[in-house]
Amino acid sequence: MYTNLEYAQQLDAQDELAGYRAAFVHHGDLIYMDGNSLGRLPRATIDRMGAAVEQEWGCDLIRGWHHGWYDAPQRIGDKIAGLIGAGPGQVLTCDSTSTNLFKLTLAALALRPERRRIISDTLNFPSDLYVIEGCIDLLGGRHELVLAPSADGMRVEPATLADMIDEQTALVALSHVVFKSGFLYDMAAVTARAHAVGALVLWDLSHSAGVVPIALDACGADFAVGCCYKYLNGGPGAPAYLYVRSDLQELARSPIWGWFGQRAPFAFGLEYQPATGIDRFLAGTPPMLSLLAIEPALDLLLEAGVARMREKSIRLTEYMVELYDALLAPAGYTLGTPREPDQRGSHTSVRHPEGYRINRALIEELDVLPDFREPDNIRLGLAPLTTSFADVWHTVERLRRAIDQRLYLRYPAERLAVT
Amino acid sequence: MYTNLEYAQQLDAQDELAGYRAAFVHHGDLIYMDGNSLGRLPRATIDRMGAAVEQEWGCDLIRGWHHGWYDAPQRIGDKIAGLIGAGPGQVLTCDSTSTNLFKLTLAALALRPERRRIISDTLNFPSDLYVIEGCIDLLGGRHELVLAPSADGMRVEPATLADMIDEQTALVALSHVVFKSGFLYDMAAVTARAHAVGALVLWDLSHSAGVVPIALDACGADFAVGCCYKYLNGGPGAPAYLYVRSDLQELARSPIWGWFGQRAPFAFGLEYQPATGIDRFLAGTPPMLSLLAIEPALDLLLEAGVARMREKSIRLTEYMVELYDALLAPAGYTLGTPREPDQRGSHTSVRHPEGYRINRALIEELDVLPDFREPDNIRLGLAPLTTSFADVWHTVERLRRAIDQRLYLRYPAERLAVT
Repeated sequence: MYTNLEYAQQLDAQDELAGYRAAFVHHGDLIYMDGNSLGRLPRATIDRMGAAVEQEWGCDLIRGWHHGWYDAPQRIGDKIAGLIGAGPGQVLTCDSTSTNLFKLTLAALALRPERRRIISDTLNFPSDLYVIEGCIDLLGGRHELVLAPSADGMRVEPATLADMIDEQTALVALSHVVFKSGFLYDMAAVTARAHAVGALVLWDLSHSAGVVPIALDACGADFAVGCCYKYLNGGPGAPAYLYVRSDLQELARSPIWGWFGQRAPFAFGLEYQPATGIDRFLAGTPPMLSLLAIEPALDLLLEAGVARMREKSIRLTEYMVELYDALLAPAGYTLGTPREPDQRGSHTSVRHPEGYRINRALIEELDVLPDFREPDNIRLGLAPLTTSFADVWHTVERLRRAIDQRLYLRYPAERLAVT
Repeated sequence: MYTNLEYAQQLDAQDELAGYRAAFVHHGDLIYMDGNSLGRLPRATIDRMGAAVEQEWGCDLIRGWHHGWYDAPQRIGDKIAGLIGAGPGQVLTCDSTSTNLFKLTLAALALRPERRRIISDTLNFPSDLYVIEGCIDLLGGRHELVLAPSADGMRVEPATLADMIDEQTALVALSHVVFKSGFLYDMAAVTARAHAVGALVLWDLSHSAGVVPIALDACGADFAVGCCYKYLNGGPGAPAYLYVRSDLQELARSPIWGWFGQRAPFAFGLEYQPATGIDRFLAGTPPMLSLLAIEPALDLLLEAGVARMREKSIRLTEYMVELYDALLAPAGYTLGTPREPDQRGSHTSVRHPEGYRINRALIEELDVLPDFREPDNIRLGLAPLTTSFADVWHTVERLRRAIDQRLYLRYPAERLAVT
């Protein structure tokens, strides 16, 4: 019976990726459902950081730059490339997602100077929209950001979006997987539609990289950005990445003319000359400890392989939906995530009018750590290498228990200040 | 006799900051003269990073944000404020120096929309100039960057600079201490001159913070940026900082409208509203491991105190100049640093036509680690908490030996590729 814990344990016993769980730090009995916010710590990263601090900084000192620091943005970028369908020399690990989005939005708009429209959607991560609004302001307010609506608050209809992309469109900027609902865009179709009318596309891969097969090169995508701290397990606030398709690199420029993007930084000439290739999109000195912390996780992810991670991810989210139907829908929850596996990433959202208080009960007395997104989404991130089927079962059972035993009533509905 | 090692050892015995040396990692007999490029690792940082990785990331997971991560840019910023003469709430630790300079340059230019001239100098760190050139390009090329010349390649005459700052000037952007020569600007005088004609001032403190008394508030400085990996011992590529004077914060805007600079990031509204106060100058999620690594060093620096560090710094550089006169000038070196202590920071530059090869000999067989800056500068950074007077003596003796024994002839004059 699939609603029994034994069934989940059987799925775990058959899971060929189950062995990876031990490659990450686990502590106590916590059910961690927030790997889509901050991925777990790989055990290998502990040793890597120890060496980076004590050996490289402590002993090698400035010579560390020649021993794997200078080329870290490119080396680690090329590893990420292996997870997102990009050939080498097109991905850099650097700065934050916001700053990379800022750089690439301005680079893209400069490539389409006669066009003044940017298309995104109302489901996009708000700060992606903020960054674009800021770019528009900086360029004198001559551009317009137009947001595709969502009828169900969960997904954007392909036809709705396609109709909005036209010859006025300079750039289509979307999150590949939507942060609340987990809705997954058809990257190939959207990119093709944009290109058909001469528009460029910039994908934010933060919620898809590492769990969904991505084929940037095969789709002919122009630009992409993403963070490394979710399914890439790169650590809190890990530096982000950016992708610029090879043939665009010599045409495009970063607005931040930094030292690391200069052709010959150690010539110390007074005039900026952009580096050739992807390097021109670097800005200042990268935060090396945070950057090096990303690498061990990528090696694990590449070894496991995107295809196998996607396969398990679908089985995890399918199982979650099955248990939702059996146990959560009858308790007043609604599903905030598409039911079609090919339309979702690796997190699911269950909604409830008392979602905020339920979420607090889960954290404070039920030993489950999900996250909450206004107004009523309890977001459950299922990371293929660290989440077990038993984790899913326990989470659903406790979501149900929070209602059945009215545990959520112990918590006020007023939001806690975050900082 | 001051040219004997015993004299240096006597100075060390009398040095009240000598005890701090043991608070940093030392390895072997290396004489490290590059604390102005990458400061040494504090021992306390090893434990701090271990806890940040294993306890906070590994066990606290996403809850780490509430346990000292969210407020780290402000908390660490306020500690830096204590080293640069700034009251609380005006300094953030975030992004890179280049990105912060980009943000504040654009913020400053927007405050003086009718003015089109930016003043800097030919001695400034080149990438500071690149960033400004990039801002000008982004704004449509309507601004002009004018560089004050240096007659001696070492300093800019105060009158020369003052004459260039006029009613056309929007912004004066300078390095407080110049990266090659160590020349120290009179911050109060330059700031007063700029303000007298209605211009704004942006100081790059990368080479002065931690070793030179800085009084941003008392000078009425408008903006400042700086890096944390030199005398602040924050680690390789450590996140940088920015300062915006309190009364400018509500008037100024960052061009990068990021999540962390939003008034209510967790409301997930679609329209950007800048945060009140300094927080609006944050962009994306900070690289937390690199950020947390900065803090233990700041505690040491604050305990030692800027006044005592400056006093020792002057004695170190004075001793270096004395030994230069006695031992290096006769061997064909020239001094690339002002002789007046009040006109220099904490590094000295000795120049030699064979400087590049001498520098290689020092590194590869004489166990001294300085750095080289084209065309002929051997740059010697004297960090008050980690450099001893004996270090200075040994460095000078080996600089002399490299000439006397013609050791430099073993190395080609062709530059090694850096990456």
